[in-house]
Amino acid sequence: MNIPQSSFPRVIIIGGGFGGISLAKKLSRKEFQVVLLDRHNYHTFQPLLYQVSTGGLEPDSIAYPIRKVLQGYPNFYFRLAEVLSVATDSNTVTTNIGDLKFDYLVLATGSETNFFGNETLQKNAMTMKTIPQSLNLRSLILENFEQALLTDDLHEREALMNFVIVGGGPTGVELAGALAEIKKGILPKDYPDLDTRRAQINLVQGSNRLLPAMSEIASKKAEDFLEKLGVNVWKELRVTDYDGKRAKTNQDTLFETATLIWAAGVKAMPIKGLNATDLCTFGNRLKVNDLHQVEGFEHIFAIGDVACMTSEAYPKGHPMMAQPAMQQGENLGENLVRMLEGKKMKPFAYRDKGSMATIGRNKAVADLPKFKFQGVFAWFVWMFVHLYFLIGFRNRLVVFINWVYNYIKFDREARLIIRPFKKQYQTSK
Amino acid sequence: MNIPQSSFPRVIIIGGGFGGISLAKKLSRKEFQVVLLDRHNYHTFQPLLYQVSTGGLEPDSIAYPIRKVLQGYPNFYFRLAEVLSVATDSNTVTTNIGDLKFDYLVLATGSETNFFGNETLQKNAMTMKTIPQSLNLRSLILENFEQALLTDDLHEREALMNFVIVGGGPTGVELAGALAEIKKGILPKDYPDLDTRRAQINLVQGSNRLLPAMSEIASKKAEDFLEKLGVNVWKELRVTDYDGKRAKTNQDTLFETATLIWAAGVKAMPIKGLNATDLCTFGNRLKVNDLHQVEGFEHIFAIGDVACMTSEAYPKGHPMMAQPAMQQGENLGENLVRMLEGKKMKPFAYRDKGSMATIGRNKAVADLPKFKFQGVFAWFVWMFVHLYFLIGFRNRLVVFINWVYNYIKFDREARLIIRPFKKQYQTSK
Repeated sequence: MNIPQSSFPRVIIIGGGFGGISLAKKLSRKEFQVVLLDRHNYHTFQPLLYQVSTGGLEPDSIAYPIRKVLQGYPNFYFRLAEVLSVATDSNTVTTNIGDLKFDYLVLATGSETNFFGNETLQKNAMTMKTIPQSLNLRSLILENFEQALLTDDLHEREALMNFVIVGGGPTGVELAGALAEIKKGILPKDYPDLDTRRAQINLVQGSNRLLPAMSEIASKKAEDFLEKLGVNVWKELRVTDYDGKRAKTNQDTLFETATLIWAAGVKAMPIKGLNATDLCTFGNRLKVNDLHQVEGFEHIFAIGDVACMTSEAYPKGHPMMAQPAMQQGENLGENLVRMLEGKKMKPFAYRDKGSMATIGRNKAVADLPKFKFQGVFAWFVWMFVHLYFLIGFRNRLVVFINWVYNYIKFDREARLIIRPFKKQYQTSK
Repeated sequence: MNIPQSSFPRVIIIGGGFGGISLAKKLSRKEFQVVLLDRHNYHTFQPLLYQVSTGGLEPDSIAYPIRKVLQGYPNFYFRLAEVLSVATDSNTVTTNIGDLKFDYLVLATGSETNFFGNETLQKNAMTMKTIPQSLNLRSLILENFEQALLTDDLHEREALMNFVIVGGGPTGVELAGALAEIKKGILPKDYPDLDTRRAQINLVQGSNRLLPAMSEIASKKAEDFLEKLGVNVWKELRVTDYDGKRAKTNQDTLFETATLIWAAGVKAMPIKGLNATDLCTFGNRLKVNDLHQVEGFEHIFAIGDVACMTSEAYPKGHPMMAQPAMQQGENLGENLVRMLEGKKMKPFAYRDKGSMATIGRNKAVADLPKFKFQGVFAWFVWMFVHLYFLIGFRNRLVVFINWVYNYIKFDREARLIIRPFKKQYQTSK
């Protein structure tokens, strides 16, 4: 890879997500040569992917060109590359566009959907971790309704209009709420010749409450909101398999469905070459100390979803969410600068700013460190916080306008099948 | 196809473009059963596709859900379908989702890129007639620059940064201008480690002037604007072949290029089953009389690009553009209602409202019936007219905001490779 030699030490950052971007920003104008590698040329604002899937937002307004983030930073290099492996003995990263040596390496590779080894599930379920995946889901949802119009087989029509969302975390809850609003507000108008009352939205959660990482009151309220919107909430139920037609569970419950969305788990994406014994038992993450150093190395770091930094308060590592990733990126950036200046590095301390989930218009739940609240006010705070963390003024403006429009008009105009997904459902009878 | 029987006569409209949508609107609340068929579930505002390709606009804001256009119209049915053939003896349309009988049939199928039979060209050239095609072009342009960074072979690097646009009509001119602005305003900032001065934009026109359908002064001024932006304009030159690496012309001129965009012609898309002897010799269009009736039929009509209605003023039929299509759709809609009411149909008379093309910021040319003007004012008029004809308030607002942002910031933030196109260029040496 033709990155020029420099007198500054070279930091390779793998991944332009929340962690990688925060770190890169902290290293701007410092005496490092920074090389950022990513499979995409853009940063994805993952918390809003579900709105892309449900036609509420354009994909482009929750993505931001990585090159633009780095514009004007001296000694910064971006390369669109897939990292294949790391050789820790020679300090070399191998990618699909060549090799590159590093002085410091930071893994900020994030996480992917975890099917816990079930290949049938993986093949047939929809996921929502990237923009293309979210667009595929958007296409499939709309294609299902178009196909439902064409069949005289009631069994088939119901399966096409039956949505099963597995996983009651924020992604599952938000997606279920958005689908319920589409069912209520858009389907009857768009499909007057289809009995859209038959559409079902099922949210399946393994444990005994939704949003298990949040407070009891948030869980309770989220469930209330969802039920008010007509979502069928199933607790203490696990989907064990899905062949594209029928979802089996650990109980007698079966779902006949053309669309199963898997939001029931993520696993970290460590890179080949970093010893597997360093993996945390939870979600494939790499064990790091409180300076983000991967066990056994002083110059190899991991931040965000891929890192497992355990402490008394977080025995399984920090939550795999945007906040810890951003804070870790900032802390590591400051530490690298301190190190350069001969100062002592500061151990990471996570400041939990709270968490939120939105269910629908005027319906959200928020757990802040000082107080917990639900309803309209939480919904406004949710929107404000998401706009605040979205990268780019234009993105904020366009997202804001879409939200105002959607709110006033009870509408979602991006219900477009730009690239058909073309999964043809046929009844299992 | 399960469309209910109705006591009203059934009109099938094939195509939800400018013509089909205008017609559908005119038939709302009238005593017809209207079935609109389209391959996409959205209407595409084709005049702005080049801005999607060049990262200035999101795809979703120039598309509009067809079902939403028809919301609230009684007796309207939309089906997402590919029409395969028409049987004129049995008044049946055959599609990939089944057959359907009609009382009246309207072809509004539009046009596709015309490679004049050259299959090598067709295989290797990029086109820009649909949103997916435009997104592919966007991806390829950005991928080329990423790839140019990786090569030490100057010849290869220059070919990757060499853009050849074939066709000096509005599409070619607008795309060339937009690429020139990207070269000037964005590339040096995004790719500080690439000598982007080597990027070349070539616009190749067969005849002796650009924008041949416009006035001489518009042609002259458009060429001036493009040259000021650094575009190489080639006139009286025809690209005869392109193998993915090298474009041959009818002269000695050769272009080594990884990207050839073909905007040098369109041809109508008539449907199998309508007798080929009814085809106009110009661009595969179906001959119609001034009531839009396809020759030989009283109940089968064609409007827009697919129709060839010749007159003294338009011996080759009307221009294959949005305006004639919209006016024809409206006229035919009114005529169908007149027919129902037992009144005489009105022959179509085209009101030429003029034409325009934009080259870059503050640079456009406009030929209106009463006067012709160029520059800043033309540019504002161009924007106003395009916003006016764009369907949907949200689309207008989002496009407007993007334009204001791009204008103030000299930027185009949708430079995102959402779905890689992955055409790997290798030098022909």
